[in-house]
Amino acid sequence: MTKEDIGNWFRNLQDNICLELEKADGAGRFHQDIWERAEGGGGRSRVIQGGAVIEKGGVNFSAVFGKAPEFLLQHHKVTDAYFFATGVSIVIHPKNPMVPIIHMNVRYFEMSNGVKWFGGGIDLTPHYILPEDAIHFHTTLKTICDTFDSSYYPEFKKWADDYFFIKHRNETRGVGGIFFDKLSETKSISLQDRFDFVLAIGNSFAPVYTYLMKKNSDLPFGEKELQWQDLRRSRYVEFNLVYDAGTKFGLETNGRIESILMSLPPRTGWVYGIENTMGEKERATQNLLKKGIDWANYVGNPSAS
Amino acid sequence: MTKEDIGNWFRNLQDNICLELEKADGAGRFHQDIWERAEGGGGRSRVIQGGAVIEKGGVNFSAVFGKAPEFLLQHHKVTDAYFFATGVSIVIHPKNPMVPIIHMNVRYFEMSNGVKWFGGGIDLTPHYILPEDAIHFHTTLKTICDTFDSSYYPEFKKWADDYFFIKHRNETRGVGGIFFDKLSETKSISLQDRFDFVLAIGNSFAPVYTYLMKKNSDLPFGEKELQWQDLRRSRYVEFNLVYDAGTKFGLETNGRIESILMSLPPRTGWVYGIENTMGEKERATQNLLKKGIDWANYVGNPSAS
Repeated sequence: MTKEDIGNWFRNLQDNICLELEKADGAGRFHQDIWERAEGGGGRSRVIQGGAVIEKGGVNFSAVFGKAPEFLLQHHKVTDAYFFATGVSIVIHPKNPMVPIIHMNVRYFEMSNGVKWFGGGIDLTPHYILPEDAIHFHTTLKTICDTFDSSYYPEFKKWADDYFFIKHRNETRGVGGIFFDKLSETKSISLQDRFDFVLAIGNSFAPVYTYLMKKNSDLPFGEKELQWQDLRRSRYVEFNLVYDAGTKFGLETNGRIESILMSLPPRTGWVYGIENTMGEKERATQNLLKKGIDWANYVGNPSAS
Repeated sequence: MTKEDIGNWFRNLQDNICLELEKADGAGRFHQDIWERAEGGGGRSRVIQGGAVIEKGGVNFSAVFGKAPEFLLQHHKVTDAYFFATGVSIVIHPKNPMVPIIHMNVRYFEMSNGVKWFGGGIDLTPHYILPEDAIHFHTTLKTICDTFDSSYYPEFKKWADDYFFIKHRNETRGVGGIFFDKLSETKSISLQDRFDFVLAIGNSFAPVYTYLMKKNSDLPFGEKELQWQDLRRSRYVEFNLVYDAGTKFGLETNGRIESILMSLPPRTGWVYGIENTMGEKERATQNLLKKGIDWANYVGNPSAS
């Protein structure tokens, strides 16, 4: 398994996910922008806008390499090194507020000093939390995790709760999912095992999300639900611009802005005091934006911390 | 001049500005929320929404005091101290894209170790840059500055160019204005002089902005201008959430979220590739989002750096 193999797998993953999303949407088509990085490598940004189900979505692939920038050298305490990084990043903003926003990232990093690891995460941000969707989502992730290592799901689920958290609102971004970083080879887990796990997560994206697209995209909604969607999307913007490590990293290292910020929603807004107009459905969602809900075993009485 | 005097002046400034804005708007009325800070002090948040000219605006006053929090003690290298901070913060988002967004902040800070200073800034963010408005705005500020000290305008204008800058876009937020911080007493400038200057800037807000409201709020606009307004507003969000020191400070110190984020626009959106649909008017604005334009002496041929 060379780094080229890993990059190719991720590129294929992008292709497959785009195909499946187009099929499920029925109308929208991805537009591709190919870009090159002056110092080495590049990527394929794919954006879909104005689809039947997807209002805006991005599925980005990149594989970049070259001399390690200063902050990497410092971090690894070396004076000279080469790095290679590849991954797929996805954010989908659906039109219908009853369909959740979804995000996934899978990535591989290696450096000429011998460091090699995988990272990633997938999380669901419903505008309206439908418990059955959160249960389905987490059960799917738990089943995959458990195939590899029984410690994965509890550990990575907690990691997601802590990571996808809007501190200044004291609320989670959504119903979470899993998050993991710097998974390298250990005595009992080979790098190939790590890769197999990351690929299994990557391959779960299309089935899990197209299921939710089909299930919810015909649910009725009106002006009030669109207003609430604006609010929930504005929280998404707050998370991404204030806390998201990938966004920060991209902005600080002069990455391709259009690709980094493709995660931001196509329409949103901050209306003062709109929280006070919340109805029962909105309040129910707000009350579930908490860490520590055991969604895989949820029975309507959350053990939230 | 006690700190209570300064607080009272700022409170009056809030009252006057709200009155003048309501008068110029003709329809909108400010809604007030009074809040208290557990550790000492509080504020009056005033928000206007859905006016005839102003779509959303906030004019906030606060005066807080108490034991200095840890980061202040560390910064000032003391183990124990009391602080007092008061100020007025304003952001106005107009409905008509031909009326510019405006921001002003004036503030006073003192600590029991003897530190006393004023800070502040005012800057204009046109959706469409009309050079005559930028000239009027900067000439007004320069005239006030020059009354106090001939070094003020060039120094504070450059400070604003550097501060109100969206690094990841390599563009300024708008046409700038002035920015200044930690203006304390010097041999030749008393603290009263500093305060007089800050008040003069504060008092210029209502005339300078109501002038622009009246001048531009009847200019025609359509769907295309609203789309461009969305884009310009989304840049405003990027600046405030990624770079703005006041916002960062508020979010990190557990401030009143609704008051801190009242600066964010009521409607916005990130549409991928919309920059590519720019027409001549939009391109002209984009080309003027640069540091170093000498707006007070602008003759249509900017000396931009």
